[in-house]
Amino acid sequence: MAAAPVWSVDPRTGNPREQVAVESTADEIDRAVRAADAARSALADRSVRALLLRTAADLLDEAGEHVIEAADAETALGPTRLTGELARTTAQLRAFAEIVDEGAFLDIHIDHADGTRTPPWPDLRRYKIPLGVVAVYAASNFPLAFSVPGGDTASALAAGCPVVVKAHPDHPGTSELCASVLRRAAHRVGLPEDVVILVHGFEAGIELVRHPLVAAAGFTGSVRGGRALFDAAAARPAPIPFHGELGSLNPVVITEAAAGEHAEQLGAGLAGSMTLGEGQFCTKPGFVLAPAGDAGDRLLKSLTAAVSETEPGVMLDHRMRGAFVDGVRERAELPDVEAPITPGAGGEHTVSAGFLSVPARLLAAEGPHDLLLEECFGPVTVVARYESDAEITAVLTRLPGNLTATLHLSDGEAAGEGRGAELLAELTPLAGRVLVGGWPTGVAVAPAQHHGGPYPATTSTSTSVGATAIERWLRPVTYQTTPEALLPPELRDENPLGLPRRVDGRQETPGS
Amino acid sequence: MAAAPVWSVDPRTGNPREQVAVESTADEIDRAVRAADAARSALADRSVRALLLRTAADLLDEAGEHVIEAADAETALGPTRLTGELARTTAQLRAFAEIVDEGAFLDIHIDHADGTRTPPWPDLRRYKIPLGVVAVYAASNFPLAFSVPGGDTASALAAGCPVVVKAHPDHPGTSELCASVLRRAAHRVGLPEDVVILVHGFEAGIELVRHPLVAAAGFTGSVRGGRALFDAAAARPAPIPFHGELGSLNPVVITEAAAGEHAEQLGAGLAGSMTLGEGQFCTKPGFVLAPAGDAGDRLLKSLTAAVSETEPGVMLDHRMRGAFVDGVRERAELPDVEAPITPGAGGEHTVSAGFLSVPARLLAAEGPHDLLLEECFGPVTVVARYESDAEITAVLTRLPGNLTATLHLSDGEAAGEGRGAELLAELTPLAGRVLVGGWPTGVAVAPAQHHGGPYPATTSTSTSVGATAIERWLRPVTYQTTPEALLPPELRDENPLGLPRRVDGRQETPGS
Repeated sequence: MAAAPVWSVDPRTGNPREQVAVESTADEIDRAVRAADAARSALADRSVRALLLRTAADLLDEAGEHVIEAADAETALGPTRLTGELARTTAQLRAFAEIVDEGAFLDIHIDHADGTRTPPWPDLRRYKIPLGVVAVYAASNFPLAFSVPGGDTASALAAGCPVVVKAHPDHPGTSELCASVLRRAAHRVGLPEDVVILVHGFEAGIELVRHPLVAAAGFTGSVRGGRALFDAAAARPAPIPFHGELGSLNPVVITEAAAGEHAEQLGAGLAGSMTLGEGQFCTKPGFVLAPAGDAGDRLLKSLTAAVSETEPGVMLDHRMRGAFVDGVRERAELPDVEAPITPGAGGEHTVSAGFLSVPARLLAAEGPHDLLLEECFGPVTVVARYESDAEITAVLTRLPGNLTATLHLSDGEAAGEGRGAELLAELTPLAGRVLVGGWPTGVAVAPAQHHGGPYPATTSTSTSVGATAIERWLRPVTYQTTPEALLPPELRDENPLGLPRRVDGRQETPGS
Repeated sequence: MAAAPVWSVDPRTGNPREQVAVESTADEIDRAVRAADAARSALADRSVRALLLRTAADLLDEAGEHVIEAADAETALGPTRLTGELARTTAQLRAFAEIVDEGAFLDIHIDHADGTRTPPWPDLRRYKIPLGVVAVYAASNFPLAFSVPGGDTASALAAGCPVVVKAHPDHPGTSELCASVLRRAAHRVGLPEDVVILVHGFEAGIELVRHPLVAAAGFTGSVRGGRALFDAAAARPAPIPFHGELGSLNPVVITEAAAGEHAEQLGAGLAGSMTLGEGQFCTKPGFVLAPAGDAGDRLLKSLTAAVSETEPGVMLDHRMRGAFVDGVRERAELPDVEAPITPGAGGEHTVSAGFLSVPARLLAAEGPHDLLLEECFGPVTVVARYESDAEITAVLTRLPGNLTATLHLSDGEAAGEGRGAELLAELTPLAGRVLVGGWPTGVAVAPAQHHGGPYPATTSTSTSVGATAIERWLRPVTYQTTPEALLPPELRDENPLGLPRRVDGRQETPGS
């Protein structure tokens, strides 16, 4: 049987552009994982990991024009967005290089022997070591920042784990290009190229998560695909951590006072956030609780005006376009749902943005309107109009887990008047990031970032963005009564590597 | 249908002592979890959590005589061991109170807005919040330290999570007594008693892990039971973290030089560790690589002498006794397996300690002897005699994951001569705690401790002992551009609670 071809497709036409690869067979997955596993020891040296990440960033910058061209041809995201995404991607690689250099992620704890404890303590020294080969499942909607050279790859390499990346079928050409850049970076710094290996194909992805030498997995994508892989990871003879980012509604609550003060800015801001990148962000605000009455009407008027000015756009692929058109229609047909600007099919290959509105009370208890509480990927949001604070609370308790939750307050509420604190407390259980003001699209790559949330937002309590994303690929190991001569340098008393550590309960931060 | 009775049984006779409870029905589990969930907000205040933990420790100490008597009657572990276990348990509760007070576990990160970043950073502030109700599955072999008042309960309460504990059927009376003490402690500090709820029964345990309001689970027990619950946790509509400690062989490697120098001490030390508590420790050294030849012979002679001096003992229950006797017999019948001191049935209710020996080369490739690489709960260990360093390596690569791995070296090897470092590197991938010298039984409750390891040692990368055990019951949440007036005090600029934090990349440790 001939290997199944992998085509690069132009989403602006639906036409194939070129065959860029073939789907990886089970044998090829086995060889890929073994090759990656064989490259593990080469990544043991932290300084070479930092160098790899910086070199990869430099080479990606150098190849920038080609990378952006390839990504645009396969995703239609446009050069402006992709230029930004590339900058974010290389900044992320460099940020992880700094994290590797600093070494706080090693989480070093040293407790010297203490006979006064119950029971007595022997000499114990702990740090974190890499788990092994990491399987990375690339996202459709970020061909760079959440794909081959993205956060999962960067954080895994930073942790000392080789990666086998399963390319997303929406951008196999971009994936090949980026993988070749990463492998070139490895070669340039004297590492085996197999610290990064690219594979293609749906079946290949399943084989990969089941491979005995794969030690952990990172995934960004749909609830359906992510859950299937999560289930496969959990069903292994030896289960592995599966860090999946699956789906999120990203609720927004706008108080009556906020709408009263800022209706126009809020309508325009919402329109900008929900249509950004054709509504294909995992953090798109997909559900908005806005007040019934005058202030809410003004907000919707402003939203209508702003959305009606957006041009039809191209989604990442035609299957997604179809799912969006069908999903919107199904929702719009529900009783009492209005579509002030009907989202849906734009032209033959495009979609047009819009939004739906519904009385919030219809969502306060289980019923057919629950469909409105499911993510619909694309440029649409649902505005639920509430009549009372009790309706806000009732609807919030019915929401699944989210990456983000956003609260818009009046100036007085932001200063502590009224229900601001109470609403913030109601939103906190729903999400991993809670915003007061602003919009959830845009995820800063910062140490204090958390990009994750209760299921189905993520399948673990970890983040896939920011410094702590590295924690996903490590496990602690403690050395007991181990002679200095045999201890890893990280754990020796004299601290030859100058690492931050906690020694006998006291934080030591060299150089600070 | 009448509820199934829960009997307290005397393991010294196999006779029922008294009925202490009935098995919890599905309705009762639902009510228990809802009641625990309703108690969540009462645990939000960190200072009351610390007070609860200290009060629980005080009340357990006060009730010590009764607790030890009850536990001994149900487990036959004896007052000396149980007095030590109680001291360890109350020390553990107090240690978690200190952890709560200190607040480093909140892992606070504050990044002020920074427009120079790519993409720009808004104001981001992260800390960790409790997950919700935690299901705790108590262990058979530690009726206190890994049961109702044990590490899972202590760390969950410290994190701010109410617990529903599923009692182990080997000590339901002790469980009832300890639960009443913990609930009394809650009452005394003004908390709802339902921050700790006890349930009984196998089916109840399954119901519990499936309950929608249960947010995480901790388990200490067998591979079979733990895997079933892990699978149930993973199969939920919304999967939850399942931190299970399942099984461990705890390999020991004794170099030829170590045996040559210290054969007698090593034989006696091994005998003491493998028979401690009738070999019912999760850290029992169950597999020992010892050299063939003279030095190894001397070691086995010393082991034989020491083991032959041990008296028959009572296991935790008669089912375990049966499994031990059958498991030893099955192993002893394998070709080329010798039993210098045949372990097995002692008297009608007891077992006698012993060990098996086998040429290591028989374990270097898959075969019937693989049974020797499976944990056998009880006072037995397997000594595999190696002829070469290559045999050590070959056997080590075939071992499953472990809580511990132990290396015994000669004085010269400990100082850096010979293969010490190499062997340490071979043992590190196998375990969460690696000892050089000493024996793995005995787990200090220290910040640098790690009690966990590759599957099946644990089902996650977490520890169930030591300060970081609290991390299992928390998830991060980030607040973005949130006004000071609305921020939790932990995240306000002025740091009113005096907590350790990382602000703009710099560690701040108040009072240090």
